Amino acid sequence: MRTVKMQPEEPGMARASPAGDPVALICGGGSFPGAVAEAIARRGRRPVMFGVKGWADPKVIERYAHHWIAIGQAGRLFRLARAEHCREALFIGTLLRPPLSQIRLDWQTLRLMPRVIRFFRGGDDQLLSGVASVLEQGGLRIIGLHEVAPEILVPEGVLGRYRPSARDSADIARALDVIAALGRFDVGQAAVVADNNVLAVEAAEGTDNVLARIAELRRGARVTTPPGVGVLVKAPKPGQDQRFDLPAIGPRTIENVARAGLAGLAVAAGSTIIAEIAEVIAAADRAKIFLVGVSADTRR
Amino acid sequence: MRTVKMQPEEPGMARASPAGDPVALICGGGSFPGAVAEAIARRGRRPVMFGVKGWADPKVIERYAHHWIAIGQAGRLFRLARAEHCREALFIGTLLRPPLSQIRLDWQTLRLMPRVIRFFRGGDDQLLSGVASVLEQGGLRIIGLHEVAPEILVPEGVLGRYRPSARDSADIARALDVIAALGRFDVGQAAVVADNNVLAVEAAEGTDNVLARIAELRRGARVTTPPGVGVLVKAPKPGQDQRFDLPAIGPRTIENVARAGLAGLAVAAGSTIIAEIAEVIAAADRAKIFLVGVSADTRR
Repeated sequence: MRTVKMQPEEPGMARASPAGDPVALICGGGSFPGAVAEAIARRGRRPVMFGVKGWADPKVIERYAHHWIAIGQAGRLFRLARAEHCREALFIGTLLRPPLSQIRLDWQTLRLMPRVIRFFRGGDDQLLSGVASVLEQGGLRIIGLHEVAPEILVPEGVLGRYRPSARDSADIARALDVIAALGRFDVGQAAVVADNNVLAVEAAEGTDNVLARIAELRRGARVTTPPGVGVLVKAPKPGQDQRFDLPAIGPRTIENVARAGLAGLAVAAGSTIIAEIAEVIAAADRAKIFLVGVSADTRR
Repeated sequence: MRTVKMQPEEPGMARASPAGDPVALICGGGSFPGAVAEAIARRGRRPVMFGVKGWADPKVIERYAHHWIAIGQAGRLFRLARAEHCREALFIGTLLRPPLSQIRLDWQTLRLMPRVIRFFRGGDDQLLSGVASVLEQGGLRIIGLHEVAPEILVPEGVLGRYRPSARDSADIARALDVIAALGRFDVGQAAVVADNNVLAVEAAEGTDNVLARIAELRRGARVTTPPGVGVLVKAPKPGQDQRFDLPAIGPRTIENVARAGLAGLAVAAGSTIIAEIAEVIAAADRAKIFLVGVSADTRR
């Protein structure tokens, strides 16, 4: 068994990850954990899945070396990660704030609880950063997707055949401003703007829900901008810890944008997860909507 | 026929409204136009309803002296208002941004169109302020509800039997901050905050839709704060022209707040419409939720 350094990294201290070093993937729901595991394996590192019970999809998790953990089992996670020689861990997939009744605490977590509880009352960002600092105390460095699988992130520029018009670009800028204005409330990874009107702001409901709402408001004539006008913009909150809860898009996002009658979607380049990028681009082209990665520089 | 002054008022010039002076009510949908007409009549002025075709409810409009107008018929409105001796007009009821195809223009409106079109691309506030300035040029002074029927507006303080807890008060303050942060985007008359988490921000969908969403997210375990925690806050956007589009609550709002599992609702005192106040308070007491009018002073 290799010796594993269990002390937290010095801040700012760069550390090389040997090519063969395994990575612990703490996996929530959805298919993204599988896409990330594949990308990590392609780069010659071994993914070890830690599926969160109740959230992670067994079909996704069980294709790789894996363990199941419950929220609150930090001790178990440390033990298993150590046995698997993982020094780095990555959060990936949907992991919603759990109801307290579903949390199963182990002794080590209980010892850490006073710190975690403090974070629980903030927004998701605060909670996750808190959890990360607790895990790092236990010797697991929490890394970001850009460090191990940057190809899973949306690149900058126009990705498909269609491009945003000048009006679309103005709508994109306004939606980014809305997201920025809400950043300090730890809310709002997405907004819909059509011809300068803010039609929707995402909070707890998720992007699919936002798009379904636009489609429905359109049917009920509460949204009266003509089809083909308007954009969905997804971006992390300003100052968001890039290791957690990055916005994600997939083929279904494209379908829903089209169904909502929008011209296209813009996402933050370098910090939006896109699995199956070729399929997503093909879907956008078929739906005749644009898909563009906007750089952080274009954000005011 | 009385001589009617058709020149716009000098800005800042106070003008007494003789008790008997009729008031033109430009009526959108919902039941509020009826409640306002009643309050105006109780104060000894004659309400004249101008129902907007496609929006106003004939059952509400036809209980009073009334005319029907289409959006875009400013000339017809001026003519009829003059014949009815109305020098003051009030906008009341739901009036959503109409699809261009539904607008019927008369000649006088066509002459005014270049000015109106400029306003059309802004948010609702800009559009309405634009329409108001156009109507004032035609000799109709646009007044606010507080000038003719202040009893239709929510007063300050706790209105029912239940009071907000300290946590509720903190949630109310946070929701008011969210609404304030979105004001410059001409969006967001309501937000839901539960235990410091922003669960929903209203844009084009309307408050009933927001509350239904919270109830549904709760059923799907995407909202995990326990029932009885969280507040709905409604307030005009900061700097909003108080003559238009004030937030409104009724017994249905109370039912929906209760169904969403929230502790209560807070609304901006003096600028939130409440028809049937006794019924609304009784409904809040029955549902064991608080209802409070918060003063502008408590807003940061």
